[in-house]
Amino acid sequence: MARPIVLGVVGDSGAGKTTLNRGVVRILGGGGQVSYISGDDYHRYGRDQRAELGITPLDPAANHLDVLRQHLDHLRASEPILKPNYDHRSGTLGAPTYVRPHPYVVVEGLLNFHTERLRDAHDIRVFLAPPEELRRNWKLTRDCTRRGYTTHQVLAELDRRERDVDAFIAPQRRYADIVVCFMPTDDPDPGKLDAHLILRGTLKHPDLTPVLGPEGDGPTLVQGDGEMLLKIPGSTDSGLASELEEAVWDRMRYASRLWSPRGRPSAGARIRMCGTRPEARAPTRRCTPDRPPRLRPVLTFP
Amino acid sequence: MARPIVLGVVGDSGAGKTTLNRGVVRILGGGGQVSYISGDDYHRYGRDQRAELGITPLDPAANHLDVLRQHLDHLRASEPILKPNYDHRSGTLGAPTYVRPHPYVVVEGLLNFHTERLRDAHDIRVFLAPPEELRRNWKLTRDCTRRGYTTHQVLAELDRRERDVDAFIAPQRRYADIVVCFMPTDDPDPGKLDAHLILRGTLKHPDLTPVLGPEGDGPTLVQGDGEMLLKIPGSTDSGLASELEEAVWDRMRYASRLWSPRGRPSAGARIRMCGTRPEARAPTRRCTPDRPPRLRPVLTFP
Repeated sequence: MARPIVLGVVGDSGAGKTTLNRGVVRILGGGGQVSYISGDDYHRYGRDQRAELGITPLDPAANHLDVLRQHLDHLRASEPILKPNYDHRSGTLGAPTYVRPHPYVVVEGLLNFHTERLRDAHDIRVFLAPPEELRRNWKLTRDCTRRGYTTHQVLAELDRRERDVDAFIAPQRRYADIVVCFMPTDDPDPGKLDAHLILRGTLKHPDLTPVLGPEGDGPTLVQGDGEMLLKIPGSTDSGLASELEEAVWDRMRYASRLWSPRGRPSAGARIRMCGTRPEARAPTRRCTPDRPPRLRPVLTFP
Repeated sequence: MARPIVLGVVGDSGAGKTTLNRGVVRILGGGGQVSYISGDDYHRYGRDQRAELGITPLDPAANHLDVLRQHLDHLRASEPILKPNYDHRSGTLGAPTYVRPHPYVVVEGLLNFHTERLRDAHDIRVFLAPPEELRRNWKLTRDCTRRGYTTHQVLAELDRRERDVDAFIAPQRRYADIVVCFMPTDDPDPGKLDAHLILRGTLKHPDLTPVLGPEGDGPTLVQGDGEMLLKIPGSTDSGLASELEEAVWDRMRYASRLWSPRGRPSAGARIRMCGTRPEARAPTRRCTPDRPPRLRPVLTFP
């Protein structure tokens, strides 16, 4: 039996972590195969208490990061945990949930790469870095529609958090094995975004050149110093995107850092990042708060 | 630095665990020196859900015993935990509490010696075995006055639990290092109870003969096969009880099972079981539900 694999996705509030992971969990086989953890559940304070203390949830002191690390270690050792719960709608802490270990652990959060011990608890570290304007729009839409905030509240909160974003969120980018950036294109369909994946040498990435084909308008790979940049235009054919995915996964699953000496994952197991935001099936011409963009193509990594 | 010492007190509901531990925590230096854990906080279900499922809280399946063991291991390793909470008054599960490690961990519960891994997580294991009539009276008083039950409800619950007491609670007695029994005496003061402490060979117990003095009406020690029986009559002078305590502790703190090779506890550190139930300062002639007995003498062990 291989030990569970921990995939961590970090990014600022509204960067698309949950949307991305919803796809990842589904593709990995759903809840029966994946222990899904949100770092937000490890908030130390409820919303009212944070306001009293003048602290944002982006501050490490406002989170039980030591307990999150403990819990990832337990799941990695195929042990269950009693996971705390934070209710985004009410802004309160609730009774914990018993979470069983599964072959995969998908964990998202604001600060999950903040300490060395937390970083070490992950097998694959992904950082989401959408352009700031896009992220603000995504956050505005979500917080107003699903978390009960007003537009004014969200905008004020975005400003209030700015310092902590610079101090605590952004610096984590350097520890990621894969950095995912979305870029708006000139395409009239605003749902089509270019995706740039920085594949760092901290993981063994596959040779993608056979899949990419001749240079042209399609995906391109730029070899850098200790890292590769995979550019996937928003116009990429979905068949080619799938091929890329296969190629990435096929090599990645042998990456030595991922597996205990005793075992390997099943050949069919694979992680696929699916960038389509389910709440926005119909693309619109502009990336407006009330209609977030559909991300294409499907993003792929191990 | 010595690693934290875990003292576990197990007994049926109403056996006097909390009363006993309140004294222990105070004598160990209060909250600043002791991480206090109640096994009831690890209930899997709230009261309503237990009623629906037809399960009592005495059933191992109604408790997260695996998580309790994890948490004891963490505290023993001087690591914090996020402890769940069960509210006895409302019968519901609540938001967890961050518990820091301290030199001592005092943990009480119904099933804390149920599995081998749980038993191994304790340094000192104490089992409380009051006579059944006394325990029923104590439980009746507490549940009616502080947990909002009616007399009828408590009596019905006591009957409903009987099978699980036999199946799950009573068998844990065999794993205790110290078994504490209270015995009613012929003394007209019903608050005076004889205490019988079975000191098992699983811990290194001290030579108490010099303290006990000549045979008579005072405390006596009976050497048995692999265990000792310390009988402390309810009439024992409190000065002698204190001397007994010193003698027990002075030897016990060198017991090899308690300490890591790297260290020893401070010389002043000691655990003293204080059997006075604070809610019952005035002894009455009979052990009635509305006025529980004052336990004397002060019981002592490491």
